[in-house]
Amino acid sequence: MDSMSFILFGATGDLAKRKIFPALFNLYIENKLPKAYSIIGLGRKEFTPESFRKYVKENIMEFSRQTSQEAELERFLELIHYSVLNVDNKEDYQKLLATVGKLEKEKGIKQNRMFYLSVAPNFFDLIASNIKESGLGNTDGWKRLIIEKPFGRDLESARELNEQLSKSFAEEEVYRIDHYLGKGMVQNLDTLRFSNAILEPLWNKNYIDNIQITASETVGVEERAGYYDHSGAIRDMIQNHMMQMFMLVAMDRPTGGSTIHDEKKKVLESVRSIGENEVKNNVIRAQYDSGTMNGKEVTGYLNEPGITPDSKTDTYIALKLLVDNERWSGVPFYIRTGKRLKEKTTKIVVQFKPLEGSVENQLQPNLLIIEINPTEGVKFKINSKSQLQSDVIESIETSYNEASTKNVPEAYERLIYDALIGNNTYFSKWEEVEHSWKLVQPILNMFQKDVPLHKYASGTFGPKASDLLLQEQDFNWWN
Amino acid sequence: MDSMSFILFGATGDLAKRKIFPALFNLYIENKLPKAYSIIGLGRKEFTPESFRKYVKENIMEFSRQTSQEAELERFLELIHYSVLNVDNKEDYQKLLATVGKLEKEKGIKQNRMFYLSVAPNFFDLIASNIKESGLGNTDGWKRLIIEKPFGRDLESARELNEQLSKSFAEEEVYRIDHYLGKGMVQNLDTLRFSNAILEPLWNKNYIDNIQITASETVGVEERAGYYDHSGAIRDMIQNHMMQMFMLVAMDRPTGGSTIHDEKKKVLESVRSIGENEVKNNVIRAQYDSGTMNGKEVTGYLNEPGITPDSKTDTYIALKLLVDNERWSGVPFYIRTGKRLKEKTTKIVVQFKPLEGSVENQLQPNLLIIEINPTEGVKFKINSKSQLQSDVIESIETSYNEASTKNVPEAYERLIYDALIGNNTYFSKWEEVEHSWKLVQPILNMFQKDVPLHKYASGTFGPKASDLLLQEQDFNWWN
Repeated sequence: MDSMSFILFGATGDLAKRKIFPALFNLYIENKLPKAYSIIGLGRKEFTPESFRKYVKENIMEFSRQTSQEAELERFLELIHYSVLNVDNKEDYQKLLATVGKLEKEKGIKQNRMFYLSVAPNFFDLIASNIKESGLGNTDGWKRLIIEKPFGRDLESARELNEQLSKSFAEEEVYRIDHYLGKGMVQNLDTLRFSNAILEPLWNKNYIDNIQITASETVGVEERAGYYDHSGAIRDMIQNHMMQMFMLVAMDRPTGGSTIHDEKKKVLESVRSIGENEVKNNVIRAQYDSGTMNGKEVTGYLNEPGITPDSKTDTYIALKLLVDNERWSGVPFYIRTGKRLKEKTTKIVVQFKPLEGSVENQLQPNLLIIEINPTEGVKFKINSKSQLQSDVIESIETSYNEASTKNVPEAYERLIYDALIGNNTYFSKWEEVEHSWKLVQPILNMFQKDVPLHKYASGTFGPKASDLLLQEQDFNWWN
Repeated sequence: MDSMSFILFGATGDLAKRKIFPALFNLYIENKLPKAYSIIGLGRKEFTPESFRKYVKENIMEFSRQTSQEAELERFLELIHYSVLNVDNKEDYQKLLATVGKLEKEKGIKQNRMFYLSVAPNFFDLIASNIKESGLGNTDGWKRLIIEKPFGRDLESARELNEQLSKSFAEEEVYRIDHYLGKGMVQNLDTLRFSNAILEPLWNKNYIDNIQITASETVGVEERAGYYDHSGAIRDMIQNHMMQMFMLVAMDRPTGGSTIHDEKKKVLESVRSIGENEVKNNVIRAQYDSGTMNGKEVTGYLNEPGITPDSKTDTYIALKLLVDNERWSGVPFYIRTGKRLKEKTTKIVVQFKPLEGSVENQLQPNLLIIEINPTEGVKFKINSKSQLQSDVIESIETSYNEASTKNVPEAYERLIYDALIGNNTYFSKWEEVEHSWKLVQPILNMFQKDVPLHKYASGTFGPKASDLLLQEQDFNWWN
């Protein structure tokens, strides 16, 4: 692994505190950092090197999955530096350049520089161009940019942002984080599909009736009201996470020289666009109302602190996608996400077609269930003769569950590690982002016009309209 | 369910004691006996009706899976009768006819008569012909014959026996018991195969590399030395139980008017015969030697009490079958059974072919494992990305296990019930028996000549030669 400088913008922010520093520490413990490196935290707040290390230490103690290693933690902290930086102050970048250069010399670090922008999206462009202008991006080695979401808030703003970034970083240098792509079971999708002789032959329209991708939360808008009320589930979940999972499930198998990214792009291009006129029939938007969660009364979205009282923001989206290619022609993909639902779960359910000529039409369909969160597992639902009554066929489940006690890497560990070794497989490329926005844009447009906003009681499985979306084709959600 | 008389020859024998009466009692408790019926036990021993009921009661208390129902047990016992019968005494059959007729009248039982021959095979013929001659078989309703194994000890004797039986009972009246066909998971094979859309399309030479059927015991010859030393594993297990499981796994799906029996027969006819010259290359026979079982020294077969000291009897058989039809051309079926092996298990393992064009040749193959005994379960072995190391693919198992505490019907309950309702699906038909003997006969012949008799230490997985049988094609037993 190349020696490098890890330059973190937004080092005093919430994400750095909860995810990034703990991830770096865990990589350190597992010997997944380079032999020579430095970590330079940047923020507006005043910290001495000592006080910053103390702050990082406390956060790691609180949020890292491995904390017991006190001595190692001290050694890890020694390599962490801090500089005050105002993102629009060009002198600060010069100071940063000097610091980075000094550390590179002192520690024999090659000029490989990882810039991690853990800041509000309106600063992405400014920081990137200052990195370029200051000479920080002018290296003998590689430079890479890790960038957090959201990447734009519609097609146009995303394109503008990309245009700007591309002046300072080439596409292959940009690592757009979608932390769902860091989840173990999401990274496992390609392995499950392409390393199993019993799955790949069945993974097409001949055997699959529909595929359902669900990410349901039990929490409401919580402390994110300000952001969320201007985004909604469509921007917060559908355009990025859900579309990424969709691509991994629907793409063709990479063969010859093609990569996962090539195949993801190809399948996105085959998705039938939902024109503005078709939004009503293919997209259900809804907002949570008051209700009962675990026996406790909870308030509706419109009464949440920080939410506009007449907000039309969607806290629930269900949509149906069709893919016009040989593999999927006619197979609906149902995608749904929402807050304040009955169950917290991220999962993919593949529903297989009934066996042709089967006399037992009343049989439950075979299902493959891939559980992503909070439990990770793989399950097959199949039919089996009842042990008790030989004339009864019942549905049984063969299941594999990742041991929940296993101390496994978190999404941010996997992603930062991949960025360090230059593997962008599980990051979003621009073409994917752009295409997802293209798909979502007509929906955003129509949400300004006359798409009904359904209501659903908190603690339910969502609005009835969402069930009807599937019932049209005689399907139902697998809850 | 038709009213009927259940006439049990060998009512004082071991099978009646351990299996048949307990099964009848459990059927009684579960309301799976007709409204009107009688049970007439026959044997040479002198019993009064009372002493016989007491004897049956004790056995049920000891061997039935449901014993707590004292009051119901008493009511069940009231319907049990006993007559002394010498199988070659024609007068005894006349007395029996009178008894049966009297009970039929008294209890309003129609002339449906179930004759169950739980006696030594040399009496099958005699009893059947006496049933006919005496007029017992001359009924207004149905008559059925349940017959225990073994059905012949080679092709010729089996044909003779069938010839004789057929004079008294039509083929559709004969219910040949193979108690493996009464096991829950064996009866589940057709359901698993034909009610699951994810299995049937893969169940052929395009996706399956080989299929392994194992029935291994940990016990030695025990108290059955006298019988076993003249039979060996080939007659005791292969010709009947193993071939029956093979047929259910390999047969085509019954469609249109065809039955499971039709399909079993068809697949047997497609099995490539093992000519005498080919026995050496396709059949491994072996005998257990001394060894260690659970840390305890055990003796070899030749030192077991009741075994001829120079016996050449096989306590282990492994064989390879090929099926020359469209579904299976080129796919080996490996079948093995033995005593004093490391593990007690009856299971079927389906090994799938590697995915074509898979770059990961070192991957473990996908397996479907159907566990029949002592645990009952269905498992898929598939490949999955390691949670801990994202560049490692490991084998995981999705599994379903029937709860072992479930109080489920035993094989004899299922089979007697099926015979009572006239469902012969899970009984062996003559054509299956005959064909199995045809297949086994050249092996029996060669065992008299120059097929090597391998030795294996007790407590191992069998002789090395058995591994070599698979290694020829780069396969191995899944232990």
